[in-house]
Amino acid sequence: METSSQPKQVVIIGAGFGGLRVSRVLAKANVQVTLVDKHNYHLFQPLLYQVATAGLSVDDIAYSTRAIVKNRKNVIFRMGEMTGLDFDSKTVLLDSGTLSYDYLVLATGGATNYFGLSSVEKHGFSMKSLDEAVTIRNHILYQFEQAAFEKDPDKRRALLTFVVVGGGPTGVESAGALSELIYLVMNKEYPNLNFKEVRIILVEASDKLFAAMPEELREAAVETLIRKYVEVRLCVQVIDYDGNFLFLKGGEVIPTRTVIWAAGVKAAPILSQLPIERDAMDRAIVNEYLQMPDHPEVFVIGDSARFEANGRPLPMVAPVAIQQAECTGKNIIHALTGKEPIKYAYHDVGNMATIGRNAAVVHIGKVKLKGFFAWFIWSVVHILRLIDFRNRFVVFMKWIWDYLFYDRLVRIITRQ
Amino acid sequence: METSSQPKQVVIIGAGFGGLRVSRVLAKANVQVTLVDKHNYHLFQPLLYQVATAGLSVDDIAYSTRAIVKNRKNVIFRMGEMTGLDFDSKTVLLDSGTLSYDYLVLATGGATNYFGLSSVEKHGFSMKSLDEAVTIRNHILYQFEQAAFEKDPDKRRALLTFVVVGGGPTGVESAGALSELIYLVMNKEYPNLNFKEVRIILVEASDKLFAAMPEELREAAVETLIRKYVEVRLCVQVIDYDGNFLFLKGGEVIPTRTVIWAAGVKAAPILSQLPIERDAMDRAIVNEYLQMPDHPEVFVIGDSARFEANGRPLPMVAPVAIQQAECTGKNIIHALTGKEPIKYAYHDVGNMATIGRNAAVVHIGKVKLKGFFAWFIWSVVHILRLIDFRNRFVVFMKWIWDYLFYDRLVRIITRQ
Repeated sequence: METSSQPKQVVIIGAGFGGLRVSRVLAKANVQVTLVDKHNYHLFQPLLYQVATAGLSVDDIAYSTRAIVKNRKNVIFRMGEMTGLDFDSKTVLLDSGTLSYDYLVLATGGATNYFGLSSVEKHGFSMKSLDEAVTIRNHILYQFEQAAFEKDPDKRRALLTFVVVGGGPTGVESAGALSELIYLVMNKEYPNLNFKEVRIILVEASDKLFAAMPEELREAAVETLIRKYVEVRLCVQVIDYDGNFLFLKGGEVIPTRTVIWAAGVKAAPILSQLPIERDAMDRAIVNEYLQMPDHPEVFVIGDSARFEANGRPLPMVAPVAIQQAECTGKNIIHALTGKEPIKYAYHDVGNMATIGRNAAVVHIGKVKLKGFFAWFIWSVVHILRLIDFRNRFVVFMKWIWDYLFYDRLVRIITRQ
Repeated sequence: METSSQPKQVVIIGAGFGGLRVSRVLAKANVQVTLVDKHNYHLFQPLLYQVATAGLSVDDIAYSTRAIVKNRKNVIFRMGEMTGLDFDSKTVLLDSGTLSYDYLVLATGGATNYFGLSSVEKHGFSMKSLDEAVTIRNHILYQFEQAAFEKDPDKRRALLTFVVVGGGPTGVESAGALSELIYLVMNKEYPNLNFKEVRIILVEASDKLFAAMPEELREAAVETLIRKYVEVRLCVQVIDYDGNFLFLKGGEVIPTRTVIWAAGVKAAPILSQLPIERDAMDRAIVNEYLQMPDHPEVFVIGDSARFEANGRPLPMVAPVAIQQAECTGKNIIHALTGKEPIKYAYHDVGNMATIGRNAAVVHIGKVKLKGFFAWFIWSVVHILRLIDFRNRFVVFMKWIWDYLFYDRLVRIITRQ
């Protein structure tokens, strides 16, 4: 029987960095929280490229969402995909039923943005999900298995040419990790392949890598990649890809079987199906409290939200999602107790990215670091961010092993 | 240019326990060895059920075959599937080309034997490959996600009923591991499920589990399973399964969405396409040297071979494959040097199986052990058998973690 003292229903869509953090802030509030995700795990996206390049196992960066929330007594996890939303009846539609809410948090995350290049979408690889990362790993390893017994030199070189598109952290980290996989590990195991035939090409449309970093660190990143035999191609735009040939603006053609697209992100597709105001990247326009302007009971955070600070939209990165989750959790508690909501204020926590062993760039406030010390900080920060002790420990041990023995042991092709 | 001193070509089909061991024996012989497998990894099959029950990751029990053979200078690995064999021209057909041989070793392993029960083959689960084990894991976890929000009690109970068919080591180990996954780990994480609705049923057509073990140990296994809430059903035969209802001989019907078939093995299907003499399980009949009677340059070992000792065909287990590989490797070296071949003699190395934490049965010669000490021996033996140091270490750490914290951390649903 419903009484007025029954706790309010909070529905959170998405168990990424943002959604999970909201559930943590609300863990002791007088609300009933339902956390919904289409997967039953939380994915540690920043290390996804290490799954794609055979450094880590799937299980090292994915962690059961139920296990995370099991001690939060007012939080229930429900596996399901959001298919629609009725603002009037305050109901979320899932593929497996419906959920009523008093407060809704949309934290549905990001998706790959091909900017309309459907040929690349069809023949290239995206790296936003665990399945996609495993698909890339299987594909890369399989190119070598085919090349090892391919007698036609043109076909063989196309099999051994790997193009990464996008000069942001994901593209640079992938290119660096790919180089180490190939030149430090695999070159010991294909006696009948000539590794001079391998090409790794990083393509970026603008004139810089790591656009958010200071120039000194950008230059260091380029130098490190070149030392790792990565061809860095700036000011080059991809216009077409048919699975065998990559066409660049200006007429250049690269024969390659592997194009990894890390050149753009946008909000997850579900947002574009809702009757809401969005920006060009499909992100919902939110007010200063991260609410939908016409529906203050609906909050949007992380990659799903467009929020401007200092006249520029915030980047689609984990720290923003976590900060916005903290703010949203508090604002739901404020709403329950009749307090005024607080405005979200962005705090820049800096940027870091690794290019490979002993090589990273770190930019926090006025601190700029590169080389071994930056790499060490990057490693510690990422280990600490991993969600539970065992994942931390296994990842730590694997990194130590790979570092000492120049090895990558997650090199199995699981699907064909 | 071919000269008479060019080394002989040895082709080994299959990189399981048998094929891999032959390549090791031949590592320093004056032969060129090509080791072929359809996967690029060696699979440690005895622990496959732990992947299916969320205890271990895929990468913990699969290891790059190239990495294993990289220091064997005369051994080349080739990824490919055997599609045919021409005895006259001494040529193996692969999906990716052909290979000529002077000596051929068929070590193609086993497959699931449904004994003609095509409905079970269609709707049930087999557990012979890594992909199949992951499919089972995903399916089991997904049943709980569905059941947690299923309001119809009949449907919910069918979702929560798990049937394992087959009372050999694989079936018993799977049922025990499933019980621990469900009653020690998952029961903490589904607050809205009543775990009294869960059923785990082990079905065996004969009147005993572990037919190869002494009675004392067989009884201990049954008792342990019952303590773990596994319903042990002996003398019961499966006759049909439509994906929702399992039909047993005598009219009993069990509503269940999950039937894991561990009731039979046979040789891999490729053997049945060759013009050779086979037994009822598709295994090639071999002579006392493990050769095909009409083709002494072709050896067949492990699950692919039918070999009798003491009037009974040898079981399809790893120790037999490894012993036969040792014999075959030596006989190829003998043939090169003109020596007489040696006859294969079977050495019984005993049997062991685990039913769960602190519970296993071990039978070696006159030694019969059960309980904690047997479990300890089982654990040490399996850790030592894992192929490289890192896999050993990671598996060891995961087992310790699960043992201490009653946890299973590999609980992500990777495909739907």
